[in-house]
Amino acid sequence: MSLPPETFLHGELFFDRETLDAVSDARLLAAMLAFEAALAEAEAAVGVIPAAAARSIRACCDTARIDRAELARRTTLAGNPAIPLVAMLTAAVRQADPEAAEFVHYGATSQDVIDSAWGLVAAGALALMQARLEGAAAALAALAERHRRTPMAGRTLLQQALPVSFGMVAANWLESVTDARAALARHTLPWLQLGGATGTLAALGGRAGAVVSRLASAPPFAVPGGEAALPWHTNRTRVMALGCDLAVAVATLGKIARDVTLLMQTEVAEVFEPSAPGKGGSSTLPHKRNPVQALAIQSAAIRAPGLAATLLQAAAQELQRGAGGWHAEWETLRALLGVAGTAAFHARALLEGLEVDAARMRANLDVTGGMLLAERVAFALAPSLGKARAKTFLEEACRSAVAEGRPLAEWLAGRAEVGDADLAALFEPATYLGIADTVIDRALERHARRPARD
Amino acid sequence: MSLPPETFLHGELFFDRETLDAVSDARLLAAMLAFEAALAEAEAAVGVIPAAAARSIRACCDTARIDRAELARRTTLAGNPAIPLVAMLTAAVRQADPEAAEFVHYGATSQDVIDSAWGLVAAGALALMQARLEGAAAALAALAERHRRTPMAGRTLLQQALPVSFGMVAANWLESVTDARAALARHTLPWLQLGGATGTLAALGGRAGAVVSRLASAPPFAVPGGEAALPWHTNRTRVMALGCDLAVAVATLGKIARDVTLLMQTEVAEVFEPSAPGKGGSSTLPHKRNPVQALAIQSAAIRAPGLAATLLQAAAQELQRGAGGWHAEWETLRALLGVAGTAAFHARALLEGLEVDAARMRANLDVTGGMLLAERVAFALAPSLGKARAKTFLEEACRSAVAEGRPLAEWLAGRAEVGDADLAALFEPATYLGIADTVIDRALERHARRPARD
Amino acid sequence: MSLPPETFLHGELFFDRETLDAVSDARLLAAMLAFEAALAEAEAAVGVIPAAAARSIRACCDTARIDRAELARRTTLAGNPAIPLVAMLTAAVRQADPEAAEFVHYGATSQDVIDSAWGLVAAGALALMQARLEGAAAALAALAERHRRTPMAGRTLLQQALPVSFGMVAANWLESVTDARAALARHTLPWLQLGGATGTLAALGGRAGAVVSRLASAPPFAVPGGEAALPWHTNRTRVMALGCDLAVAVATLGKIARDVTLLMQTEVAEVFEPSAPGKGGSSTLPHKRNPVQALAIQSAAIRAPGLAATLLQAAAQELQRGAGGWHAEWETLRALLGVAGTAAFHARALLEGLEVDAARMRANLDVTGGMLLAERVAFALAPSLGKARAKTFLEEACRSAVAEGRPLAEWLAGRAEVGDADLAALFEPATYLGIADTVIDRALERHARRPARD
Amino acid sequence: MSLPPETFLHGELFFDRETLDAVSDARLLAAMLAFEAALAEAEAAVGVIPAAAARSIRACCDTARIDRAELARRTTLAGNPAIPLVAMLTAAVRQADPEAAEFVHYGATSQDVIDSAWGLVAAGALALMQARLEGAAAALAALAERHRRTPMAGRTLLQQALPVSFGMVAANWLESVTDARAALARHTLPWLQLGGATGTLAALGGRAGAVVSRLASAPPFAVPGGEAALPWHTNRTRVMALGCDLAVAVATLGKIARDVTLLMQTEVAEVFEPSAPGKGGSSTLPHKRNPVQALAIQSAAIRAPGLAATLLQAAAQELQRGAGGWHAEWETLRALLGVAGTAAFHARALLEGLEVDAARMRANLDVTGGMLLAERVAFALAPSLGKARAKTFLEEACRSAVAEGRPLAEWLAGRAEVGDADLAALFEPATYLGIADTVIDRALERHARRPARD
Repeated sequence: MSLPPETFLHGELFFDRETLDAVSDARLLAAMLAFEAALAEAEAAVGVIPAAAARSIRACCDTARIDRAELARRTTLAGNPAIPLVAMLTAAVRQADPEAAEFVHYGATSQDVIDSAWGLVAAGALALMQARLEGAAAALAALAERHRRTPMAGRTLLQQALPVSFGMVAANWLESVTDARAALARHTLPWLQLGGATGTLAALGGRAGAVVSRLASAPPFAVPGGEAALPWHTNRTRVMALGCDLAVAVATLGKIARDVTLLMQTEVAEVFEPSAPGKGGSSTLPHKRNPVQALAIQSAAIRAPGLAATLLQAAAQELQRGAGGWHAEWETLRALLGVAGTAAFHARALLEGLEVDAARMRANLDVTGGMLLAERVAFALAPSLGKARAKTFLEEACRSAVAEGRPLAEWLAGRAEVGDADLAALFEPATYLGIADTVIDRALERHARRPARD
Repeated sequence: MSLPPETFLHGELFFDRETLDAVSDARLLAAMLAFEAALAEAEAAVGVIPAAAARSIRACCDTARIDRAELARRTTLAGNPAIPLVAMLTAAVRQADPEAAEFVHYGATSQDVIDSAWGLVAAGALALMQARLEGAAAALAALAERHRRTPMAGRTLLQQALPVSFGMVAANWLESVTDARAALARHTLPWLQLGGATGTLAALGGRAGAVVSRLASAPPFAVPGGEAALPWHTNRTRVMALGCDLAVAVATLGKIARDVTLLMQTEVAEVFEPSAPGKGGSSTLPHKRNPVQALAIQSAAIRAPGLAATLLQAAAQELQRGAGGWHAEWETLRALLGVAGTAAFHARALLEGLEVDAARMRANLDVTGGMLLAERVAFALAPSLGKARAKTFLEEACRSAVAEGRPLAEWLAGRAEVGDADLAALFEPATYLGIADTVIDRALERHARRPARD
Repeated sequence: MSLPPETFLHGELFFDRETLDAVSDARLLAAMLAFEAALAEAEAAVGVIPAAAARSIRACCDTARIDRAELARRTTLAGNPAIPLVAMLTAAVRQADPEAAEFVHYGATSQDVIDSAWGLVAAGALALMQARLEGAAAALAALAERHRRTPMAGRTLLQQALPVSFGMVAANWLESVTDARAALARHTLPWLQLGGATGTLAALGGRAGAVVSRLASAPPFAVPGGEAALPWHTNRTRVMALGCDLAVAVATLGKIARDVTLLMQTEVAEVFEPSAPGKGGSSTLPHKRNPVQALAIQSAAIRAPGLAATLLQAAAQELQRGAGGWHAEWETLRALLGVAGTAAFHARALLEGLEVDAARMRANLDVTGGMLLAERVAFALAPSLGKARAKTFLEEACRSAVAEGRPLAEWLAGRAEVGDADLAALFEPATYLGIADTVIDRALERHARRPARD
Repeated sequence: MSLPPETFLHGELFFDRETLDAVSDARLLAAMLAFEAALAEAEAAVGVIPAAAARSIRACCDTARIDRAELARRTTLAGNPAIPLVAMLTAAVRQADPEAAEFVHYGATSQDVIDSAWGLVAAGALALMQARLEGAAAALAALAERHRRTPMAGRTLLQQALPVSFGMVAANWLESVTDARAALARHTLPWLQLGGATGTLAALGGRAGAVVSRLASAPPFAVPGGEAALPWHTNRTRVMALGCDLAVAVATLGKIARDVTLLMQTEVAEVFEPSAPGKGGSSTLPHKRNPVQALAIQSAAIRAPGLAATLLQAAAQELQRGAGGWHAEWETLRALLGVAGTAAFHARALLEGLEVDAARMRANLDVTGGMLLAERVAFALAPSLGKARAKTFLEEACRSAVAEGRPLAEWLAGRAEVGDADLAALFEPATYLGIADTVIDRALERHARRPARD
C-alpha cells in the first residue's frame, strides 16, 4: 500500500502507512458491509429472514460494488453514511435477488452498523498498535538488561541529583509501556452494536435476543470471552475508555520521547536516536543530531489529550441517539487511533535503534565534581564523626569546593575528618545505585510474564 | 463540618461539603504526616532507624503542631509543601527528642510524601464517591423495575422514534453507572510512593526493599490485594488512569442529567427533579420547574474533560522528576475529585427523588398521531398485502394523514388494505417494546451482582 | 475538484470539498514553493543573490516537478517536509542552472518556509470561511427582519419563560456571528516567517532587514496594513490567537445549531432545517425530520475546543525551535481550519434555508395556559390592587389554574380583582416583547456597517 | 489579607494572595450587591422606581448584612446565588423600608446580576495581572538592553545551532509579553448584563433602554469607550475571548519558564532563578539550584488550555439561558483568572531577579569546538575557493575535526584552503549575530510605545 497522494507532505511523521490504512474510509466501508452480511446471516440462522436472502445479501456486500462518490454525495444529505449505504446495498441486492432486498439491514438502525464498523476498525488498529508496543517493550527490556551497570546522573527538576543506571531508566520506561499494554488489552474489541431505532429491537420480535447472540458469536464479531452486549447506543463508556487508554499510552511514550530529546541535547549527549542516511542531519550544521522520531512522538503526546477530552465531552448523548455528540466521535476516534498507532510506530523504531553513550554518561556524572555523592560520604563518615557532624562537615565541604572551583573529592582528600575512608570507592557512582537492579528485575519479570501478543 | 467562609457563594453546587473536606488541605497535611509516621515505623521495624526515633516521630506527626501560615510562606519559596513540612516536623522532633530528628523523612524525597499523601486523599474521596454512585445505582434499579410497563416515546436525534419504556431508559442509565463503578473499583488506592531522590533508595542501603514492603503492608497504605510498588516518580499511569475514570464517570452522569433536562422541558414534561421548598422555582414564573441538580451535574460534565486532559498532558514528566508537570497534577486532581464527587452527590439525590409522569409520557406518544407505530402496522399487514406493498401502503398512509392533519389510526380505519387487523392493538405502544424487559433484567442482574460496597 | 477517494465516507459532513482543498497537502506544497520563489526574488531585488538565480529558482518552483512519494519518504526521515523539499528543489535548479543551485532557500531555515506556507494556507482557508460567515449573517439579518413580529416562547434552562420574537432570537444569533467575523478579521494573514536557523538571519549579513521588507511587501506575502514581522519562531501568539478565534467562531455556530435542534424537536417543532430530497428523512419513520447540518455543526463545536487547547499547549516551544510543540501545530491547525470552515459551510446553508413555523410558535406559547404572561398581568393590576397584593393574587391564580387544569386567562376572567383590565390584550404575547425591536435594529445596524468582505 | 486557612498547603505557588482575593467569593458577593445598588439607582434616575427606594436598596447592599452560611444553604437549592441573595436583600430592604422591597432587582434576572458581577471581578483580576505583566515586560526590556552583547548558543530542537545574544532572547520573550498585554487590553471590562428573564427587559416597559444606558455610564460599570451592551445572555463571545486571551498569556509565560528551566540545567547553567534563603535549595544535594517559580509558571501553562477549552465548550448555551454551560463558566473562569494572574505574579518575580551567567554562555558556545560557526567560515572562504568548494571543504573539516576530537579552528589552522582568512575573527560569535540588535530595538520600541498602564 502506498500513501494516498493527498497526505504525502508529512510522510509518516503523524500517520504511518499501516495505521492510515487500518483506519481508512475503505476499511470502514468494508466493516460496514461486513456487519450487514453478518447481520443477515445471523438473522437467517435463527429464522428471522430466509437463508437465501442472507446469501444474496452476503454476495452483494462487496466494497467494489459501492460507488464512493455517490455514497459521499448522499451522506452529506443523509447525515451519516449508513443511510445511503443501506440504500445502495438494497438496490444492489434488489437487482440480484428482488425477494432479498427487503431483508437488508433488517431491524437495524444506522447507529448499529456505524458503531459496529468502528468496533471492527478499532480492533484492527489496536492490534497493530499492540504489536508495536510489544516491540518497543522488547527493545526496552534489552536496554534495561544491557545497561544494568551503566551509571548516569539522575536528574530531578532537570538538575543532577543522585546517580541512577541507564538500565534502571529503561526499566522504568518499560514498566510504563507494560502498564499501557495491559490497559489496552482489557478492551474486548470489536464492539458489536445492535438495537434498532431506539434500542428495543422491536422489529425482530421474540427472536431479537437470538439474533444478537448469534451475531456476537460468529466472525467478525466473535471475541474470546466477550459477551453479547445489549444495545449501548447512548452509553458511550467503551468509546471513552478506549480513547482514554489510547491517550494514556501516548502520554507514556511521550514521556520517553521527551527524556530522549533531553538526553540528546548538545550539552548532555548521552543517548541518540538511531541514525540513518537523510535522518536528522543538518547540512549547514554538521555537528547536529536532530531528534526526529522523538519529535513525532512528542507531537502525538501534545495532541492526544485534546482528542481524548473530545470523546469525553461527546459522550453526553441525548436520549436514544446523540444529536452531534455521536457524530463528533467518528473523526476524533480515527485521529486518536492514528496518533496513538503512529506514536507506537515511532517509539518502536526509536527504542530498537537507540544509541547509548555510556562514556558520556560517566563523564557527565563528574560535572558537579562529585557532589552527587556528598550524601553517601556523609553517611560513611557518620560512624566516626557522628551523624550530625558528618552532615555539617559535608555541607561545608560542598560549599568550599564550589567556591574554590575544585572537585569535592580533591577538596576532601587529606582532611582529618575523612580519616581512612576510601574516598575513591565512595565517589564511585556504580556502587551507589540502591535498588536499581531490583527495579530492572521487576520490570523484566513483568514484561516476560505477558504473553507475546495481548 | 461547615463550608469554609471562602467558598460560600455557590453552596454545594460545585463542591459538596463532604467532598470538599475529603480533598482539603487539612486532609492533605494529615496524609503527609501519616506518611512520615508510617515511614519511620516501617524503617524502625526493619532496623534502619531506632524504634525510639520512630516513636518520637509518630508523636510529633500531629497536624495541630504545624503552623499553617508559616508552612504556606515557606512552601512558596521551596516549590512544594514537603520541604518545609519536613523541616518543621524535624524541628518539632528535635525539640522532643534530639536524637530522633535526623531520622525524620529518612531516605525519602519530597515526591515520596506528596504522591503518597495524594494517594491517601484520593482513596478517601473515591470511597465517598463510590458510596454515592451506589446510591444512584440503587435508585435507578428501583426506577427500572417500577417503570417496566411505562411506555414513552424513544427519541433519536431529538425526534420521536419508536416507543421505549421508561424502565428501559432507567436500565440503560443504570448500566452506565455500573460500568463507571466497576472502572473506579479497579484502582488500588491509596498509592504508595517511596524512591528517594532519584528512585534508587540508595540511602536505605540493602534494606530498601524491606522498608517498602513493610510500609506497603501496614496502615494506612495496606491495600487488600495490593503489592508493594517500586518507585513510579515519573511513570504517571495511575494518576492519568484515575483521572480518566473519574471523567468517564462524570460523563456518564452528565448524560443522565442532560436527558433529565430534556425530559423536564415545558413541552415534554415527563420527568422532574425532586421538588423541595426553595428549589428550582421562580417567583415571577410560577409554572416553571427549573432543573437544579441536573444543571450542576451537566456543568461538571463540561468541566471534567478539560481536567482529565490536563492530567494526560502533565504526564510527560522529565527524567527522574517532572519540572512543572508533576506540580500541575495537584490542583487538577483535587478539582477533578471535587467535580466528580459532587456530580455523584447530586446524581444520587436527583435519582432518588426523580418524579415520573407516566400519563404525560403516554400523552406525548400520541403527538405524532400514531406514526411511531407505522412500522409495526406495516409488519402486521405484510402477510396479507406482501411486505413491499404493506410498506408502500403505510408510507402513503403516513403522508396522507400528516397532510390531512389526522391521526394515522383514524386515517387507516376502514381501509380495505387493513382488513381485519386489530388497529387498536397495533397502536398500543406498551406491546411493542421488544427487548426492553431483557435490557431491564440484565441491568438489574449486573447491578445486583456487585457487592454492596466496591 | 472532487473529494479524494480516501475521504469519501463522511461526504462533506466534517470537511467540505472547498475547505479540504484549501488546507490540502497540495496547497501546502504550492505555498512552500511560493515562499522559496518569493524569497529568491526578494534576495535578488536587494542584491543578496543574482537575479538570474532567482529566475531559475522561480522557474523550478513548480509543484509538478516534485515527486510526492519521494518527498513523503524523505520527510519521514528528515522530521519535516522542508528539508527534503529544499533538497529536491535544489536538485531541480542544479539541473537547469547549476550556478543558481546554491541560492535556493538562501539564508533561510525549515521553519521559515513551513510557517510561511501555513500562513498562506490559513489565509486561503480563512477567506473562504469568512465568505460563508458573511452568507450566514446575511441570512440571519433577513430572518431577524422578517420575524420581527413573530412571537415565540423564550426558554430559560429549557423551561418556557417570557415571550420573545423569533426576529430577536435571530438578531442575537446574528450579533454573535458578527462578533466572530470581526475577531477573525483582525488576523493579518498570510503570516511571513524569516529568521534563519536561530532567528538572527546572520547568513544574510547587513541586508537581512532589506530582504525581510521586500519579501513582506510583495505577493504572496503583502498584506494591506501589515508590517514586516521580525522572526517569531518560538513566539506562537499568532497561531494560538487564530486557533482561539476559530474555536470561538465554531462555538458561536454550535450554539445556533443547538438551538435549531432543540426547536426542531417533535414536541416543539418551531423551526426546521431546509428540506431536500434524501435529506434528514427516515423511511421507517415518515414523520421524522432529522437534523443533519445542525448535527454536523454541533459535532464541530464539540471538537474545536480540544483542537484550540492543543495549540495553546503546543506553544511552550523550547528556546530557538520547538521540539515537538511546533510539529504538533501542523495537523492541529489543519483540523481546526477544516472543522471551522466546514461548520461555516453548513451554517450558511442551514440558515439560508431555515424554515420557520410561526403558527406553531404561537401555539406553543399557549401550552402553559397563559402563565408566561402572569408577570404582565400582575403589573397591570398593581395600580388598582397595589403591587404586593397584585403579585400575591397572580401567584395564587397560577397555582389554582394549574391545579384545576385551566388556562390562567379563563381562571382570571370575571374575578373581582381583575376589574376592567383587558385580559385579552394582556395575554397577547406580541405586545410584551420589550426591547426586542431595539435588539433587532442594533444587530442589523452592526451587520450593515461591516464591509461586504472582511 | 492573609491566605485563608483552607488553602495554605501550596502557599502562593498556584494562587497568590492578591489574585485569590480578587476572585474570592467575598468579591463576587460585593460585586453582586454593587450591581443591585447601581441598578436601583439607574432605575430611579430614569423614573422606573422611586428615588427613595433606590436609596434604601443602596443602604442595604452591604456584604456584612448577608449571612453567608444561609446564602450557601439556599444557593444549593436554588441553583444559583442570585435567587437567594435577591431574596435576602429584599428581606433586608423590607425591614428597613417596606415600600422599597418590591423594587429590589426590579426587572432583572439572575443571569443579569451574576454575569455583571463576574464582569466586575474579572476587571479587578485583569488589572492586577496587567500590572504584573507590565513589571515582567520592564524586567525583560532591561535584560534585552543589558545583554545586547552577550553571545550564547542558539538552540533548535534542543541542539546547539547558530549563536544568538541573550539580549535577543530576552527581546523575543518581551515581544510575546507585549503581544499578550495588547490582547488583554482589548477587553472592555467590566461587562454589564441586563436583559430580564429572556432578554427583552419587558418588565421595564419603554424605559428599558434608558435604564441600560444609565447603568452602563455610571460606576462601577462605566468603561471609557465602552458602549451600553444589549443583553448577551447566551452569546458568550466575551467570556470565551477573555478565557482565550488569558490562556494565550499563560502559554507565553510558560514558554519563557520552560526556557529558564532548560537554561538552568546542571549541564547548561546559563541563567538562574533569583535566589533567596529557603528557595530552591536542597540540603542533601548542595549543588542543586532547583527552579521554583519557573515550575509554578509551567504548571499554569499545562493547566490553562484545559480551562480555556472548557469555556469554549460551555458556550453552546441553550436558547435564552444555558442549562449547565453557563454554570460551568463560573468556577472555570475563576480558576483561569487565578492560574493566569498567579503565572504573571511568578513571572514578574522570576524575570526581575533573573541571574545571567555570561561567562558560562560563552563557554557553552565552545563545546562544539567552533562548529556553530562553520557556516560563517564557509561564506568567508567562498570568494577564494568558490562557494561550492568552500562548502564542501567545511563539511569535510567538520567531519574530520569531530572524528579526531579537535576543535574546528585548530583543525583548520594552517590549511592551504584557509589562506589568510582571520580564523580568530571568524570564530568570534559576538560578531555573527545578524539582526539581533534590530530585534532588540524593535522589541524595546514596541514596549516603550505602550502606556505605562493598559
